[in-house]
Amino acid sequence: MPLPEIKTVSFAGSGNVASNLAPALKRAGLVIRNVCSRNLHHASALAAIVNALPVESLEDLRMDTDLLILALPDKAIPDIAIDLRRSGRFKGIVAHTSGSLSLDVISRQGLQGGVFYPLQSFTKHSSPDIAKVPFCIEGTSSEIEIALAAVARKLSSDVRFLDSLQRASIHLAAVFANNFTNYMYAVADCLLANCDVNPDILLPLIQETALRLKGGDAAQLQTGPAVRADWPTIDQHLELLKQNPELAEVYKLISSHIVKLKNSGKAC
Amino acid sequence: MPLPEIKTVSFAGSGNVASNLAPALKRAGLVIRNVCSRNLHHASALAAIVNALPVESLEDLRMDTDLLILALPDKAIPDIAIDLRRSGRFKGIVAHTSGSLSLDVISRQGLQGGVFYPLQSFTKHSSPDIAKVPFCIEGTSSEIEIALAAVARKLSSDVRFLDSLQRASIHLAAVFANNFTNYMYAVADCLLANCDVNPDILLPLIQETALRLKGGDAAQLQTGPAVRADWPTIDQHLELLKQNPELAEVYKLISSHIVKLKNSGKAC
Repeated sequence: MPLPEIKTVSFAGSGNVASNLAPALKRAGLVIRNVCSRNLHHASALAAIVNALPVESLEDLRMDTDLLILALPDKAIPDIAIDLRRSGRFKGIVAHTSGSLSLDVISRQGLQGGVFYPLQSFTKHSSPDIAKVPFCIEGTSSEIEIALAAVARKLSSDVRFLDSLQRASIHLAAVFANNFTNYMYAVADCLLANCDVNPDILLPLIQETALRLKGGDAAQLQTGPAVRADWPTIDQHLELLKQNPELAEVYKLISSHIVKLKNSGKAC
Repeated sequence: MPLPEIKTVSFAGSGNVASNLAPALKRAGLVIRNVCSRNLHHASALAAIVNALPVESLEDLRMDTDLLILALPDKAIPDIAIDLRRSGRFKGIVAHTSGSLSLDVISRQGLQGGVFYPLQSFTKHSSPDIAKVPFCIEGTSSEIEIALAAVARKLSSDVRFLDSLQRASIHLAAVFANNFTNYMYAVADCLLANCDVNPDILLPLIQETALRLKGGDAAQLQTGPAVRADWPTIDQHLELLKQNPELAEVYKLISSHIVKLKNSGKAC
């Protein structure tokens, strides 16, 4: 039997994820009951936006809420799950928003719940379009998965059922595709600043490189001196980096992998 | 005294750069006289698009043309410059489109000319908006720089005067910001394919990471487990990569640089 529709939601946490999800859920017609944070000032700021009641402790949550979203740092979530099991008073669904943490942190406490992971980088500097954010759903039962997916579907057109190992691999892949690329952007900025070139000169190229991807085709789109075995250019670049042996090491390692990618067709 | 306006252009080369620039110049009102390629079939295909005459040899170019653009691989350009000097018949401006090659390849042959470098990745797979492509201009005289910049200004709103060392640094920075990021996308694609996740799941994140940059602010936008010293997640990722020690090496090296970036504030 399907679970009743989720209509009321509370948040543990008031950081970047909660600050993006809570207003989106409210706009989608759900009622946000509580925002819980040890920092009541933070809880209050978000609660005011979504017409919720801020609380400092899990004990103060309204217990008759359909869904409690744990939008917290990974290291905080296992202990919160233990607290919820020990108290035994919360009867709704408990879902965390972590890419790395397994479903186990919920299920091994005997809680009914799952994972509600939005695959996007939420920062103070940006407001991604939530309607395009992929939501990765996993549940302690298929009924719960359906109920969580129905909530995600109100926010986004891209909702996927994925298990904990797949989600961990997605999180790892996102480190390469997001964090490591951003590091490469930071290196480029720095190299340009060092020769008095405004780093905004790279923005059209960066955006073209990202926007032409269709998903799964990056290996075919690889360009640059390494993939075309342009050794004079590679030598020139290493000469430009000779004052910076650590960056030269990065340049050589990634270039060697691009050569292997070209030869084998496989990046991993 | 400023040079007369450049109104007629020929191309040596018919690859991706010429195939993007020639039609854009024609649309901007310039006359494309010749497209020269050792492969007459390629020359003819582009020439037909821009209403030009295809030729197989530099000797067959119309010599009364204002500008000859050398849109060729780096390794071909020095010899072409030597040929033009020896023949002595071409009296117009000669400009190459390379990021890496110095102005010297033109000036040391006594040619009047310079560099007309569009900082963008032109491939068969994409047609970037030429109006936003940064053009890097350098000339053997300031009059020639002005004349080349006037041509670039008909194509793009972003035209910059930059010397050969700056241009080489831009090209190096672009390898980090474009080629190395694309490699990271290829790794991510592969990791996802290995666990049966459609790699298109990463596209919104990749695009957000690229589009939120404003130029020069990537270091401040760095996120991920390394920058927040999230060792349990890093350990989990290295465990996921244990069958792939080469990728684990990339993961560790880039993560260690992100930690240094956080501590020092400098990426180079």
